[in-house]
Amino acid sequence: MNDIKIGLVGLGTVGSSVLKMVTENQDKVQNITGRQLSVKTVVVRNVKKHQDAVSSDIQLTTDLNAIINDPEIKIVVEVMGGVHPAKEVITQLLNAKKHVVTANKDLIASAGEELAALARQNHCDLMYEASVAGGIPILRTIVTSFAADHITEVKGIVNGTTNYILTQMQRQNWSYDQSLQKAQELGFAESDPTNDVEGIDAAYKMIILTQFSYGTHIKLEDMAVEGISTIQLEDVAQADAFGYTIKLLGVSRRIDGGVFAEVGPVLVPKDHPLATINNENNAVMVTGEAVGETLFYGPGAGGLPTANSVLSDIVSVTKNIALGTTGNSFNNFRDELGKVDPAQVIYPYYLSLKMLDVPGQMLKLTQIMTQIGASFSQIVQTKNDDQSARVVIITHEMSKAQLHDLKAQLNDVETISLLSAYKVL
Amino acid sequence: MNDIKIGLVGLGTVGSSVLKMVTENQDKVQNITGRQLSVKTVVVRNVKKHQDAVSSDIQLTTDLNAIINDPEIKIVVEVMGGVHPAKEVITQLLNAKKHVVTANKDLIASAGEELAALARQNHCDLMYEASVAGGIPILRTIVTSFAADHITEVKGIVNGTTNYILTQMQRQNWSYDQSLQKAQELGFAESDPTNDVEGIDAAYKMIILTQFSYGTHIKLEDMAVEGISTIQLEDVAQADAFGYTIKLLGVSRRIDGGVFAEVGPVLVPKDHPLATINNENNAVMVTGEAVGETLFYGPGAGGLPTANSVLSDIVSVTKNIALGTTGNSFNNFRDELGKVDPAQVIYPYYLSLKMLDVPGQMLKLTQIMTQIGASFSQIVQTKNDDQSARVVIITHEMSKAQLHDLKAQLNDVETISLLSAYKVL
Repeated sequence: MNDIKIGLVGLGTVGSSVLKMVTENQDKVQNITGRQLSVKTVVVRNVKKHQDAVSSDIQLTTDLNAIINDPEIKIVVEVMGGVHPAKEVITQLLNAKKHVVTANKDLIASAGEELAALARQNHCDLMYEASVAGGIPILRTIVTSFAADHITEVKGIVNGTTNYILTQMQRQNWSYDQSLQKAQELGFAESDPTNDVEGIDAAYKMIILTQFSYGTHIKLEDMAVEGISTIQLEDVAQADAFGYTIKLLGVSRRIDGGVFAEVGPVLVPKDHPLATINNENNAVMVTGEAVGETLFYGPGAGGLPTANSVLSDIVSVTKNIALGTTGNSFNNFRDELGKVDPAQVIYPYYLSLKMLDVPGQMLKLTQIMTQIGASFSQIVQTKNDDQSARVVIITHEMSKAQLHDLKAQLNDVETISLLSAYKVL
Repeated sequence: MNDIKIGLVGLGTVGSSVLKMVTENQDKVQNITGRQLSVKTVVVRNVKKHQDAVSSDIQLTTDLNAIINDPEIKIVVEVMGGVHPAKEVITQLLNAKKHVVTANKDLIASAGEELAALARQNHCDLMYEASVAGGIPILRTIVTSFAADHITEVKGIVNGTTNYILTQMQRQNWSYDQSLQKAQELGFAESDPTNDVEGIDAAYKMIILTQFSYGTHIKLEDMAVEGISTIQLEDVAQADAFGYTIKLLGVSRRIDGGVFAEVGPVLVPKDHPLATINNENNAVMVTGEAVGETLFYGPGAGGLPTANSVLSDIVSVTKNIALGTTGNSFNNFRDELGKVDPAQVIYPYYLSLKMLDVPGQMLKLTQIMTQIGASFSQIVQTKNDDQSARVVIITHEMSKAQLHDLKAQLNDVETISLLSAYKVL
C-alpha cells in the first residue's frame, strides 16, 4: 500500500496548479517519500466548467461527501478561500480523520487555533505553509530552524498587490490610482482591492507569523493597521530624496514580556535588503537573538509558487503517514505574551504636514514637539499652494505614546494639519 | 525519561556557542519538544585551557570514550573541524549508536555519503545544517520545501571571507592585499586564507548544495574553481562603471540530464538581490520550476549563528527520538545526473585584456571572436602604460566551449594577453 490518494476542494488558480504539480512531480515525491501520490477527487461548484481541464481518471463532483466517505483519500487540500464555508468544510474533513492542507490565511488567522485543536483531537495533520507569503517557505523554517533561538522581530513585505503598486509609484511616477488600475489590469489586484490596499491581508499574515515566532495569538482588532491608499506621490518622491523607499511592512516585535504587531507604510533605507524587494514579490526578515538578521525572499503569490508550498505540506503529511507520526501540530510553540506599552515602541517617524503660510507656524510646531519631548532630524519645507506650505520632517526616535500626543495636540491647531505619519526603519 | 544528554566534541567558537545556547534556551526547546536538553560531557584537547569557562556540572575530558561509553548521551555534536580525525570520531560515534550533528563542511563534502550510509546502518541521525552558510537554514529548507519542485539552479555567496574582501575593494577602493589584511585583523579571514580566497571552501558548500538540490554527488576535481586573489581593483572599478558588482559565486545548474557546478568571480547587476549582500554575509538563491526565484540571506559564519543551525539539528534529532523515527537520512533524494557538455553552459562574459599599443590589435581580437562565433556587447579601451592598452569587454552569451577556444587562440597571439574572464549574471 504505497499509494496515497488526495482530495482537492477548489479548482481555481492554486487548485489547478496543485493538480498539475502532484501529477507532474510524482516521481520525485516517490523518490523521497516512498509513496506515490495522486489526486483522486476534486470538489468544485460547477462540474461542467472544469470538465475539459481535468483528466478523465479524476472524479469531479460538487459533493464534499465524495471525499468525506472515501477511505482511500487520506489528504485533502482546501483551496476554496474565504472563512465560510471553508471553516465548516475543514471541520467536517478533520472529523472524518482526513489530514488537511490549506492556503487559507483569513481562516487560519481567525480560527487557526480552534482548527489545530480539532486536528490534534482527530490525530490529523493540519498544515498551511501557503497561507503566508505564497512561495516562501517561511512557516516551516520558523518551526524547524528557529526552534532553539529566541525571535525578537519578524517583519516583511507580505502583500504582493501593495508592493506592486508602491513599486510603480516609485519607478513610474504614477499616482496611487493609476498604479492600482495597472495592477488590476495585470491581475495583481482584485476588482475590490480593499483587503489588500488597506493592509488587512498583510495583518492576517502577521497574525500567523506572530503565532509561529512567539507562540502567542494576537487579534486583528489589537493591531494598528494602515494601508497605502492615502499615500501621495509627493511622499514617495520626498522619501526618495531623503534616501528611502516607502514599503507596506508588517512588523511584529517582542519587547520584554509583550508582543507588538502592526501593518503600515514604512520608510526603508535604500540600501536595506527590504528596499530591493520589488513588484509583486514578498520577503520576510526574521531576527533571532542568536542568529541575527535573516531574510527569506520569493514570489508572494501566483498559482505554481503557492502550489509548491501546498506540495511541501503534502510531502510533510506523507512522511508523517509513512512514519506513523501524524497528529502533531504544525507549530506547537506556546507562550503567553502580553501587550506592549506604547511608550516602549520606539521609531523615528516621517511626518508630512500642511501649514498655513503665515508667520509663527514653525514655532508652534517646534513648541509642540518640545513639549512632548520629541525632536527633528531632517526638515524640508516647500510651497504647497498660495495659502499653504508643505513641511516634511524626519524625527529622532519617538514612542507610539509620543506620536499619539503629537497627533492630539496638532488636532487642536487649526493652521497645521498632519497629512501622514510613517515609521522610518 | 524526558531528559536528553548531549556530548560535545570541540569547544572553539562554535562549540562554546552551542554550549551557551543549549543551556540558555532549555525552556523553549522543552516547550516545543517536551524534552529537556543538557550538555553532559565535552571532549577537548586541553582540559586546563577550558576549565574556567565551563560550569562544574559539565564533564570536561580529553577522552572520547567518556562519550562513547555513556549510555545517557544520545546526541553528539562534532565541532572540531577538518577531515581527520573528525571522520574517525564520527565513525566511532555512529557505530556506538550516537546521533551526530556536525558543522564540518570539508568532511561532509568529501565523505558525506559514506557517513550517511553508516548512520542509516546504525539507525542513527546524522545532520549538518551548519555546514553550509552558517546561520542560513538552507539545507533543511531544500529538503522540506522544495521536495515536490524541480530545482533548476542553486547559486549564491557562500563564503563570508571573500565577500568581506570584495565588499571592501568595492567600497573602500582598497587593493585585494589591503582588504585581506583588514579581514584578517577583524577575524573574518584566517592567517592562511587559501581555502577561502581560492574558492575551495565555497566549492565544498556547492557540493553539498548540489547533493541536496539534485540528489547527485559531484566531486571537487570535476568543478571549475577560481578564487578572488587575482582580481584587480581596475576590474572592480570597470565592473562598477558597467553597472555590476563582482561577487564570488558558486553556481550549480541542472541542464537537461546533467549537473554543472563551478565557483568563480561573477559580475552581478547592481539591482540583483545578490549584489546587495555585503561584508561577511551569505545568501543562497534557489530557482525551482514551480516556485521561481527564492533567496535566503543571513550570517554565513560566527559562533552564535552557526550554533543556531546546530541547535536546529539537535531539535530535529530530539523530535525524532521522541517520535521513534530516527535513522532517516537528512537528505534522501537520489538521482544520477551526468556531466554537462561545456557547449551547453552559456553566459555573457567580462573579459579584461592587455594589448600592445600597435595598430591592428583590435582587428586581430575581432577576427578571433568572429571565428569562434562570439560577439561584443560593450567595449572600453583605456591606456595601460606607454606600450600597452587595457581593453575590457562584455560579450554576448557564449558557451564554455567557445570561451575555451578563445583562450587557446589568444594564447597564440603574443601582442594580446587575457588578464581575466568572469561570467556575467
